[in-house]
Amino acid sequence: MKRLAISVGDLNGVGFEIILKAHDRIKQFCDPIYCINYTMAHQAAMLLDTQIPNDFHMMKVSGEFTIQPGHVSAESGRYSFDSFVTAIDLAVSKVVDGIVTLPIHKEAWKLAGVDYVGHTDALRDILKADAIMMLGCDKLYVALYTEHIPLREVIEHIRSEPLYDFLIRLHHSLKRSPIAVLGINPHAGDHGVLGDEERFIEEAIQKANETIGETVFEGPIVPDVAFTPRSREYFKTVVAMYHDQGLAPLKALYFDEGINVSLGLPILRTSVDHGTAFDIAYEKKASILSYMNAVQFHSRDDNTK
Amino acid sequence: MKRLAISVGDLNGVGFEIILKAHDRIKQFCDPIYCINYTMAHQAAMLLDTQIPNDFHMMKVSGEFTIQPGHVSAESGRYSFDSFVTAIDLAVSKVVDGIVTLPIHKEAWKLAGVDYVGHTDALRDILKADAIMMLGCDKLYVALYTEHIPLREVIEHIRSEPLYDFLIRLHHSLKRSPIAVLGINPHAGDHGVLGDEERFIEEAIQKANETIGETVFEGPIVPDVAFTPRSREYFKTVVAMYHDQGLAPLKALYFDEGINVSLGLPILRTSVDHGTAFDIAYEKKASILSYMNAVQFHSRDDNTK
Repeated sequence: MKRLAISVGDLNGVGFEIILKAHDRIKQFCDPIYCINYTMAHQAAMLLDTQIPNDFHMMKVSGEFTIQPGHVSAESGRYSFDSFVTAIDLAVSKVVDGIVTLPIHKEAWKLAGVDYVGHTDALRDILKADAIMMLGCDKLYVALYTEHIPLREVIEHIRSEPLYDFLIRLHHSLKRSPIAVLGINPHAGDHGVLGDEERFIEEAIQKANETIGETVFEGPIVPDVAFTPRSREYFKTVVAMYHDQGLAPLKALYFDEGINVSLGLPILRTSVDHGTAFDIAYEKKASILSYMNAVQFHSRDDNTK
Repeated sequence: MKRLAISVGDLNGVGFEIILKAHDRIKQFCDPIYCINYTMAHQAAMLLDTQIPNDFHMMKVSGEFTIQPGHVSAESGRYSFDSFVTAIDLAVSKVVDGIVTLPIHKEAWKLAGVDYVGHTDALRDILKADAIMMLGCDKLYVALYTEHIPLREVIEHIRSEPLYDFLIRLHHSLKRSPIAVLGINPHAGDHGVLGDEERFIEEAIQKANETIGETVFEGPIVPDVAFTPRSREYFKTVVAMYHDQGLAPLKALYFDEGINVSLGLPILRTSVDHGTAFDIAYEKKASILSYMNAVQFHSRDDNTK
């Protein structure tokens, strides 16, 4: 059974409620170590009118503050970052096999002087490796070739060399096949009439398949056709050229069950794909579906290498 | 009951099969006039082992050729264009209240020397008016601000004046409200960090609502959040800034039932949102769902003005 370090996220949000609610169930799939100290765990449990289970293994994260459900605060931001770093340390030193992160609040990180826009950004810097961001669920995963950049900059990134590198890195950390590589223009350019960057995509796909020695990647696939029911029967993994191209259809289809996976790093990290949900914090309304999927991803040998 | 002119599309494809299959049902919603001559209708019916119903009203379209299921041909392209033009004429002269078009084949039009890339393009030129392309079904309609242009050109079109014009024109032909207007950048720019064109969108929305005198348009909405189940409960009409932003999620959700509506023209035209399906032409496999919705759109008074 895999050992997983679990960072608790922003304690003013829904993270710890999800952790407690799902604890008994995730024990079936993994051996969890929660990155939090007893005082904070106890305080959060009290707010939820419950207790910390006996078999709730914790890795101490120093610090103490008063939880304020739904509030953005520097203390909570700092604590969520420390919990995350503790989880990374456990994974780097091989005490655990991977990490699962609960949502942090960007503004709270900023208030705490943490200079990252999110988990993935921090992972890249701390581990000095270029993570690939993949979102979705077993029915459909979307890997993002470009991520959080303005749309106007996307087109400059559509070149065969860097895309080829991306595809090879993706293949090295992901077992799935076939993988659809989307075009960039409407109708994938319609033979060059609606844009011609598809030639770079075609080149990258061909070269990547040659390097690998089999046809793992297919495309460029027409972007608005790739997510239709018929296409999804065949392609359960998609490389999107930019953020909304992949995530708008993905979230339309599988909003509640989605997870966020960081691939291509020395450690495997999964995360829920929702935020801190401050509006329902400590109200016992949070869904554990995404979290369950994030945990189970680690135990599925058919996904990653 | 509305009178509708129905153009038969490419007779080498699935159009006429759909027409015959749905005839009895659409009579409940409209009074159809099919733009085809008896010889061609008879030939198509023979290929489908069936007969032309007695109450099958036709408007003669000259021409005769041998139907070749699944083939791209100049004759079939020409005939489909002539059928379409006949339908337009009937609408312009007020013999009918609107038109429904079955799919044509772009290559066949090209072979026939018809110099349009599709129905909408032809409508704009023939009627000398700027059509708005809207796709979807009653659960979700997506109006496209930009359509068939390369992605790299999209960003130049995101300016408040032309977007304002578009929103006003849309409001003048469409009754629906509220309408979500999407942002252009990931997370709708995230307060300018991921692109700043959202300020133009915001300006256009504000000005349009002022002109109208009520809040019809809302946004800029985060593009990958606009299509989630919760968002769809509220927004059943969306303005997308570009082709794949709106159509990828739409087709992921409602592929088979989608229709294509041309708004803002002197005549109302709806169409099935699928192609000629040459691979299953005359095999009695074609779905009539999209066609039924295209016909029924005309009889729904809550949609258009």
